[in-house]
Amino acid sequence: MTTNRLEAFSDGVFAIAATLLILNVVEPGGPLGQGLLRIWASYVAYAVSFVTIGVIWINHHGVMAQIAKVDRLFLLVNVIFLMLIAFIPFPTRLLAEHIMAEGAQAAALAYGITLAIMFNVMWQYAAHDKRLLRENASERAVRGITRSYLPGPFIYLVATVSAVVSPQLSAVLYAAIALFYVLESSLFGGRA
Amino acid sequence: MTTNRLEAFSDGVFAIAATLLILNVVEPGGPLGQGLLRIWASYVAYAVSFVTIGVIWINHHGVMAQIAKVDRLFLLVNVIFLMLIAFIPFPTRLLAEHIMAEGAQAAALAYGITLAIMFNVMWQYAAHDKRLLRENASERAVRGITRSYLPGPFIYLVATVSAVVSPQLSAVLYAAIALFYVLESSLFGGRA
Amino acid sequence: MTTNRLEAFSDGVFAIAATLLILNVVEPGGPLGQGLLRIWASYVAYAVSFVTIGVIWINHHGVMAQIAKVDRLFLLVNVIFLMLIAFIPFPTRLLAEHIMAEGAQAAALAYGITLAIMFNVMWQYAAHDKRLLRENASERAVRGITRSYLPGPFIYLVATVSAVVSPQLSAVLYAAIALFYVLESSLFGGRA
Amino acid sequence: MTTNRLEAFSDGVFAIAATLLILNVVEPGGPLGQGLLRIWASYVAYAVSFVTIGVIWINHHGVMAQIAKVDRLFLLVNVIFLMLIAFIPFPTRLLAEHIMAEGAQAAALAYGITLAIMFNVMWQYAAHDKRLLRENASERAVRGITRSYLPGPFIYLVATVSAVVSPQLSAVLYAAIALFYVLESSLFGGRA
Repeated sequence: MTTNRLEAFSDGVFAIAATLLILNVVEPGGPLGQGLLRIWASYVAYAVSFVTIGVIWINHHGVMAQIAKVDRLFLLVNVIFLMLIAFIPFPTRLLAEHIMAEGAQAAALAYGITLAIMFNVMWQYAAHDKRLLRENASERAVRGITRSYLPGPFIYLVATVSAVVSPQLSAVLYAAIALFYVLESSLFGGRA
Repeated sequence: MTTNRLEAFSDGVFAIAATLLILNVVEPGGPLGQGLLRIWASYVAYAVSFVTIGVIWINHHGVMAQIAKVDRLFLLVNVIFLMLIAFIPFPTRLLAEHIMAEGAQAAALAYGITLAIMFNVMWQYAAHDKRLLRENASERAVRGITRSYLPGPFIYLVATVSAVVSPQLSAVLYAAIALFYVLESSLFGGRA
Repeated sequence: MTTNRLEAFSDGVFAIAATLLILNVVEPGGPLGQGLLRIWASYVAYAVSFVTIGVIWINHHGVMAQIAKVDRLFLLVNVIFLMLIAFIPFPTRLLAEHIMAEGAQAAALAYGITLAIMFNVMWQYAAHDKRLLRENASERAVRGITRSYLPGPFIYLVATVSAVVSPQLSAVLYAAIALFYVLESSLFGGRA
Repeated sequence: MTTNRLEAFSDGVFAIAATLLILNVVEPGGPLGQGLLRIWASYVAYAVSFVTIGVIWINHHGVMAQIAKVDRLFLLVNVIFLMLIAFIPFPTRLLAEHIMAEGAQAAALAYGITLAIMFNVMWQYAAHDKRLLRENASERAVRGITRSYLPGPFIYLVATVSAVVSPQLSAVLYAAIALFYVLESSLFGGRA
């Protein structure tokens, strides 16, 4: 089959997973003005996870543009990949609520492990892509995407492990990775 | 009408039902680290239901690719089918929360009955398909999909009834069915 | 502009509003087995509202197929129409929770008023359609859809007003209207 | 790449953000009839935010129709723009719950700041558009959209600042801005 409907389903999951992140931003108790300032970690977590999902969506897009047809195994890997994307709102909430309180380490580990697994599935995904490329696929585009994913599993591993030393450092690294992908994606990416 | 918009609406419901499953994974009380390990059943239930919805989506896809036009009765059967897909998050939550506690039997029955009804509606659906097939529909593809659905109602019935003996056995069977469809779908399915 | 993107946005709202209905089916307290039977009204309300949204989606579909282009006023009426569709989960929840308890009358009125307003907006919608029809629009299809909407505002008015006498009667009438549209849509509707 | 998939993802976020607004309308405690009247601010907030998102969607649509291709920077600005759209349900809930109670000022500021930032990002967006326009883009359409956004940041700033004097005045201004865009969009907009 062609990639149209796969993209429609994937776009749906990406869009919903990103939009559901707002349900993690909840009104704090006490006076509203102070409360809204106190939950700043919720806003940062919302932005980091939304942008992370957005950048992964952009790359997913780039990969699909080079693929001619998909087989059922590819569909299945894609479902598992989307399962991990849709999971992101849960560790995001944990991180936002616990980073400055009890459970910061567990929350930072949960976030890092989710993203690290996701990047590894993406790797399998990319390896599998090779067999499905369009005949006139742009080698440059494919290599560009692969190269941008290359450091993913490694840097998420470093950020996750650093949670053992300091969960806050870990959280800063997650934000830095998102920012790195944003810059990599926009400044060095060129025409999609 | 053509099948385009039906697919858009269906993909939307599939994507949302799958993504909403994450709302069933809720933070446990008590120390976070231990709590996150204690709710392992939530993760398994999330994965099993997500993959189940994903595999049904893949097959829905396969069926639609062989259909030329749809009539209003088909649209309606599709709406009822989607109604059951969108219902899956509820028994999934029940199963995740009760499988190791009070109410395991009721939860296992609720999950099994939902899936069993769904597979039966899918049967009606498939029977109806015959009248709507494209002239050049691939008989092999249609028979492949029909054959893969054939054991569905029966094996879900067995898994559901086994909840009377042991709800945990029932839950293991649900996971096994999902795994079976994953393997059937990817290894034996060939090009979609 | 063409109707493509309007349909994509509309399908999204229809699909999400229908799928969010499951969030109204919540686990009752007490022993699970009995509790799941006690909340039967939640299942009925879920099914009635899901099918109602589904049938409206089918008709929306039928109308759009006859329209060539849309102007900004039409887009706006469509947004207001979707605003009412997306509102349906709220009175559905009220009806499910209160129909056999305190507040049955208020819940039945809330449901009826929402649907009655929606059908009236749909009327404006249909009237406006005339100016935007495709040159080769099927007059028969347009008249068929208009005729099926004709009794809508009236019968919802009757069902709503009957809530003053008996909220339960009112709820039964809402279910009957949904069933009527299902039958009208599938048995008498012919090819879409 | 072409704009198709960007539109699919954007439409998904628009549709979900708008539809999630209904989760902010929650059943009040106490007798249901009186309670449903007491939460009138929830209905107004729902309608204002839904229509605001709808009008922004209409304009987003108008802009995309004039654009031929998108680059990765544009995709990224779009992701950030959608991040702000998806944020709207949160301050909408704050406004609905606090406008007649404690925290009205904080809620009005939160709503205004969100919308003001969003309109400013939209500006960047529009400026960037210039480079991506289709060769035969309708200058009139582009100027029409730009002109309609021109007062946005300014009037939201005024409405936001007025919350210092009276949060209720601020809320009325937000509703008036939505109404203005509705009228501007439908009466003066002409063919899309």
